[in-house]
Amino acid sequence: MTTLAVSYADIEAAHHRIQPYAYYTPVMTSTTANARRETSLFMKCEHLQRIGAFKFRGAFNALAQLSAAQRAAGVIAFSSGNHAQAVALAARVLGMPATIVMPNDAPMIKVEATRGYGAEIVQYDRYTQDREQIGRELASQRGAALIPPYDHPHVIAGQGTAAKELIDTVGPLDMLVVPLGGGGLLAGSAIAAHALSPKCRVIGVEPEAGNDGQQSLQRGEIVHIATPVTLADGAQTQHLGNLTFPIIRSHVDLVVTVSDADLVETMSFLAGRMKQLVEPTGCLALAAVLSGKIDVRGLRVGVILSGGNVDLLRFAELVLKNPPIHAPNLL
Amino acid sequence: MTTLAVSYADIEAAHHRIQPYAYYTPVMTSTTANARRETSLFMKCEHLQRIGAFKFRGAFNALAQLSAAQRAAGVIAFSSGNHAQAVALAARVLGMPATIVMPNDAPMIKVEATRGYGAEIVQYDRYTQDREQIGRELASQRGAALIPPYDHPHVIAGQGTAAKELIDTVGPLDMLVVPLGGGGLLAGSAIAAHALSPKCRVIGVEPEAGNDGQQSLQRGEIVHIATPVTLADGAQTQHLGNLTFPIIRSHVDLVVTVSDADLVETMSFLAGRMKQLVEPTGCLALAAVLSGKIDVRGLRVGVILSGGNVDLLRFAELVLKNPPIHAPNLL
Repeated sequence: MTTLAVSYADIEAAHHRIQPYAYYTPVMTSTTANARRETSLFMKCEHLQRIGAFKFRGAFNALAQLSAAQRAAGVIAFSSGNHAQAVALAARVLGMPATIVMPNDAPMIKVEATRGYGAEIVQYDRYTQDREQIGRELASQRGAALIPPYDHPHVIAGQGTAAKELIDTVGPLDMLVVPLGGGGLLAGSAIAAHALSPKCRVIGVEPEAGNDGQQSLQRGEIVHIATPVTLADGAQTQHLGNLTFPIIRSHVDLVVTVSDADLVETMSFLAGRMKQLVEPTGCLALAAVLSGKIDVRGLRVGVILSGGNVDLLRFAELVLKNPPIHAPNLL
Repeated sequence: MTTLAVSYADIEAAHHRIQPYAYYTPVMTSTTANARRETSLFMKCEHLQRIGAFKFRGAFNALAQLSAAQRAAGVIAFSSGNHAQAVALAARVLGMPATIVMPNDAPMIKVEATRGYGAEIVQYDRYTQDREQIGRELASQRGAALIPPYDHPHVIAGQGTAAKELIDTVGPLDMLVVPLGGGGLLAGSAIAAHALSPKCRVIGVEPEAGNDGQQSLQRGEIVHIATPVTLADGAQTQHLGNLTFPIIRSHVDLVVTVSDADLVETMSFLAGRMKQLVEPTGCLALAAVLSGKIDVRGLRVGVILSGGNVDLLRFAELVLKNPPIHAPNLL
């Protein structure tokens, strides 16, 4: 049996490291959702985390463990999403330079947000240039640390602190449902859940269009797929990581999938009933519960709402194209 | 000097009465808003209250004080808004019948929500019938209590519990900014604020299109206006109440107004940056701060976000028609 990259002790250490800098996010409940699924849901609000997503936890935990010399040399990340903002803000908090490699067609709002946290942006052409190569070259030229979005033990341990906080807040769970992209959040969550609530079943949820995680668990090896076309832009990963896969294989009971339609319906539910704006990727776990993909009857179920960074105009368009079902607003 | 209808002791009593049934709503902060206005804002999230608005507090406080005989006879309210849902839910919690008089062209979602809480709906034609008369006739036929939306001491005392919780949570304030319609929330908030934080300035905010409160303070008497045309449908009142006006005159320092454009910009800010869906009326107070209508520099400022019941399609349309200014998402 191989040793996993992350232990619960690492998550506890990460918790103490990030606690003064990250938000201890609230847990929400919904009478309507509970009644509809005959369950008790406890939703961890990581869309209210700094930068609007759980990614700040892992990025900060990784950067905080760099040596003084490494901090002075700065950090590099390639991402056009929440990881970019997470690394940029964590670097600013720690007083170190950050460089983010982003495609030159990345949404202006994300470029500006990342620049707003003080990071230098290096743009590349995603059709002719390789971002990993650009990132590695920059890192080697500058002696800077390259922080990957999920396949890093400190990142995984940091992401696990959200589930730790959730169970510390609400007590033991029968089930924990977590969005799945590259597996950093799911791997960290599963270790935390099994340490604090040993009988808790842990379930990952990925978009129907990109079920590489489900396939990987079935085949017993990391399955690579083409970039999936899905609204869940934070879960458009092509494969699990070399560190996240073994943890998921050991600690996760099941991976299920949801459709883009399920995601939009869940976004509308969260906005209309719970007054919360959650991005499509952030809706994955709740969508699996509300759509009936998982049997939650009579259980105490933790659900991670992982992020809220959806462009408001995009959100409005999605809602208008997919009007929510009108039903009583039982907050 | 006349005695006011509500004292702080009434608000404390209301707090103990409603505390097991109402949510103790969270207080949110925003780095972006604080930086933009050089202030410290503490936003009381009444859009996360039961029924999605502060109105549950006042309705429950009023119904809970009815005698057993009155409870058996039931309660009547006329409203097509949050007060209807508040009375319906409070009655259900207390196990008493509720009848709500609503126009037959009220939005289906509000009718269904109110019916979902178990209330009987009596519809009327708003062009040919008088809702107050219908309400009074029903009340007298059934011996039922008629609960008005704001001009009632128990309603005012109940609404004051939100400001009490806010100051109990965050400590003394330099200023408290509150939406103003009929004045129930503002009157209750002002009494609570001055009891707990004597130097706190209390400011009411109403829509530009219907500044009857501002005019009433200037003239020293209740000014009646035509029903104002504004997005803030919860503040389309024509005049302050006989009980709320004297309290506001004694305890409120200033009433300012904001435009519908200010409200939409604030809705977009709350959704885009803070991931919170707040209805136009619920945005009044924050809109006055963000638009610079009030000088908040260097102050500790309480802001009540009073409700979140905006139809999601309507919200989406408003956002699409008034695209938010894209700027870094500094949660």
